[in-house]
Parts: sequence; C-alpha cells; structure tokens
Amino acid sequence: MRYRGDTGQFEALDDQIATEFALTVKLDGEEFATIVCSPSHLRELVYGFLASEGMIREAAQVKRLHIDEDSGFAYAELAGQPSVAREKVSKRFIGSCCGKSRQFYFHNDMLTARTIVTRGIWTPEQCISLMEQLQGRSSDFHSSGGVHNAALADGDGLLAVMTDVGRHNALDKLYGHCLLHRIGTGSKAIVFSGRLSSEVVLKAAKMGCGMLLSKSAPTDLALRLAHDLGITCVGFIRGSQFTVYTHAERIVINHSLP
Amino acid sequence: MRYRGDTGQFEALDDQIATEFALTVKLDGEEFATIVCSPSHLRELVYGFLASEGMIREAAQVKRLHIDEDSGFAYAELAGQPSVAREKVSKRFIGSCCGKSRQFYFHNDMLTARTIVTRGIWTPEQCISLMEQLQGRSSDFHSSGGVHNAALADGDGLLAVMTDVGRHNALDKLYGHCLLHRIGTGSKAIVFSGRLSSEVVLKAAKMGCGMLLSKSAPTDLALRLAHDLGITCVGFIRGSQFTVYTHAERIVINHSLP
Repeated sequence: MRYRGDTGQFEALDDQIATEFALTVKLDGEEFATIVCSPSHLRELVYGFLASEGMIREAAQVKRLHIDEDSGFAYAELAGQPSVAREKVSKRFIGSCCGKSRQFYFHNDMLTARTIVTRGIWTPEQCISLMEQLQGRSSDFHSSGGVHNAALADGDGLLAVMTDVGRHNALDKLYGHCLLHRIGTGSKAIVFSGRLSSEVVLKAAKMGCGMLLSKSAPTDLALRLAHDLGITCVGFIRGSQFTVYTHAERIVINHSLP
Repeated sequence: MRYRGDTGQFEALDDQIATEFALTVKLDGEEFATIVCSPSHLRELVYGFLASEGMIREAAQVKRLHIDEDSGFAYAELAGQPSVAREKVSKRFIGSCCGKSRQFYFHNDMLTARTIVTRGIWTPEQCISLMEQLQGRSSDFHSSGGVHNAALADGDGLLAVMTDVGRHNALDKLYGHCLLHRIGTGSKAIVFSGRLSSEVVLKAAKMGCGMLLSKSAPTDLALRLAHDLGITCVGFIRGSQFTVYTHAERIVINHSLP
C-alpha cells in the first residue's frame, strides 16, 4: 500500500513488481554459477555469461544448451575445451609490474578483453537520441523501476534491447544475442541505463564495442580501463546534456564536419 | 568534457569520479573472493562480507585481519572453523520440496538468514525523514552519482552511514560496523539508496534487522523472502510518499496511536 503525505493516509496499490529468478548454470556437468536474473532471454543470458567469463568466444563453442525453467537450471555442454581454464575464472590476476596490467584484476578479463581499434563517428544528437529511445522502449523500467536496460545501436537507432534486474545480466543478454545472431559490434554503440563500472567497460571490450552510452556516472577504474581499451565513455546523458570521459575523438559536432 | 545541447558546444569539466578498488580476501591462506569496492571502511567490509557469506557470526571469530591497501589484499584468519562449510558458499541449494525452501537459492543463505521476530513501531514521518537524512548525508552520491549508501537508524535518526560503488558492499560495511561495535539491530532500520533485491533482503535478515527502507523498487523474490523472513519492505520513498510492501504492521500512522 502507498502512504501519501498530503492526506496522511495509506491507499491500496496494484503495483507491477520486477521478477527475480535464480538460474544455476551447469557446464559440462559441473556447477559453474548461479545467476540471479529476470526470467527472459535466458538462452542469450547463458551464452553471454559464458562468453563474459571467457568460457566461449563464439556461439558454436556451445554444443548443447538445455534450460529447465521449472527447476531453474541451465545445462550447457561445450564442443571442446573452454577458451579460458575454468580454475582461472574469478581468480585474482597480479601483474608482474605495477603498471597497466594491475587494472585487470581477474585472469579471465585479462585474457578476453580486447582493445577496440574501430573508429566510428557519432554526433551529440545521436548520443542524446539513442538514450531517449532506450528510455522510451523500457516500459518495465518506468512501471516497476526495478530493472536495467542495455541496447545495441547503430547510427539509425536501437537494434536490440535487453532487460534485467541485474545490470550485468542485461549486458550479458545483449552479448549472447550478438553471439547467437553473429552481429558485429565494432562500429556500434551500447546504450545502458546503469552506472559505468569497471565490469561494464570490460564487458564492452569483450564484446568488441568501442562506444558506451550511459544515463549514469562512471567510476575511476572504469575510466582508466576505458582509456586503455580504446572505449568512448559517455555518461550522464540527461535531456540535451551529457559528459564525455574518454576517447572523445569518436564524437564529432555536426557543424564541425566538412 | 560536457556537451550542452543549448549551446551545441563542449565545455571543460572538473567532475568528481567515484573510486573503484579491487580487494582480494584471503581466508586462512586461501583465496576466498575479490570484492570490487570503494576503498573506505575496508575492515568493516571484510567483517561484513565474511558474515554475509556465513564464515563468521561475530567479530571475535576473526583472529587476525591484515589489510594491505597497496597490493589490494586482505588476509583474514579465523579463530576456528567457519560457521558454514566453505565448499557450500554460493552452491545452489535445492529444497526437498517445491515450497518455501525453494526461495533460498544458496546454501549459506539458508543457514544464516534468520526470521525477524522483533516488532518495532515506525511512523510514516520517520520513514520519510530517515530517507531525507540519508540523501542529505550522502554528498558523494550527489556529486559523483556513482555510489550507494546504506545506513543504520533508530527512531531518532541515522546511527552510521556506509558508502560504496557496490550496492551490496555498502550493506556489508554496515554489517561489519555492527559486528565490530556489537550494535544490536533488532529494533533498528536499514535505510538504503538502492533497489530491494533478494540479496538485500537476505542481508537484512542475516543482520537481524526487520525494517528496510529504500528509495527504489523491490523485486518479487525480495518481497516473497521479506514476507517469509518477517521483514518490512518500504520502497519508493520519494518526497512525502512511499510504498509498504510487506509486514506493514511495523508502520503506524501517528493519529491512530492512542
């Protein structure tokens, strides 16, 4: 029920609540991880999660995937060995010097995140418009306020939108969608409703996408990684304003074009 | 740099960016977990994290804790055996029937989350005021927009505020603070800037706190758990309004009191 300060009373409320679901991924028979997620696009989620964790690099590396929604289990079988040794997943990586490598704190990130070399040119108007489109498409976000959205976009608009109660799951679903449909991300942008943490930047690098648009704020580690990995971080896209934190060369004001 | 739509130009910007730090916890010599966090109250974070994971129930169970901020490592030694067997941490728990136990998806949650039986009475005005106090105290949140805040409160106001780039870390720091200072939480409230997910409700239950106030939305699983665990979930506290989702008996409108 809702309390209203103006009347000083409670009133009945029929609110829409975001669903949270626990999916346990078994990889070649062994328990790999339990993902707390929204129960949509689970196939995309598993593919994207396995790729994020360095287990696969392309969809064909999954020989078989069976998802049992009733029990909350996903059974995945790989066609061969995982791309990164399983025991290195989530193990701390310590660089041999105190320099650049220090910023990769997990082994599998170091092995899977790629530096983005694609150029791609975006105008400020496109950045603003893509975020407006994401917010327009995310009806769940407005009605329940409890989910995050991640979209893939090109200069014409959004190509796919994924939604989840978990920030990272929304991105993993998008990654899985790209893998399953063999969509190249090099010249595209990720439009994200959440904060730009280091994990978000690492996922963009793993996906091979150099343009990251967010409604929210970045962290310092996210920006150091984005700088090193060649990713343009745009944050605080609100109304007609936004902030460019890294690799501003991908954004060109229209009237400065020849 | 910031793009302004009204001028169509970029302008220089000296923004405050939230710091993100990777802390690897070694427990009795073995790598236990790497926490990506804000580098403040790390001692509280480690205690709260170990308690959340079921390794300890009270601060005295940690015999020694050394935190090396330069290398990003925390070395913890337990006084005895962990409260929950290490191999059960993050392992999926499958209940023997499809009923209540299904909602606990991790073994350690099932073993550590307690049903809250304390009553405690709060007025709507207190709920609104505590959230206002949290937002007033969280200067970082306003300036960088990249962090979450969790506070412990009683009827008089906030007792402790913890800040982190990670939602769960802010709560773990609060948990650690309560353990280290032996603060009882039974009749107190947790005031939280983030969304009420199942993990947030489980942490409140582990801390023994029955009143959870949030600026944001809950998920369905969070509400089912809160219902079972005896926790009052208040969400969307904005201005003079809020929504009570579970165990509304703890909130009493003032003019209805005798």
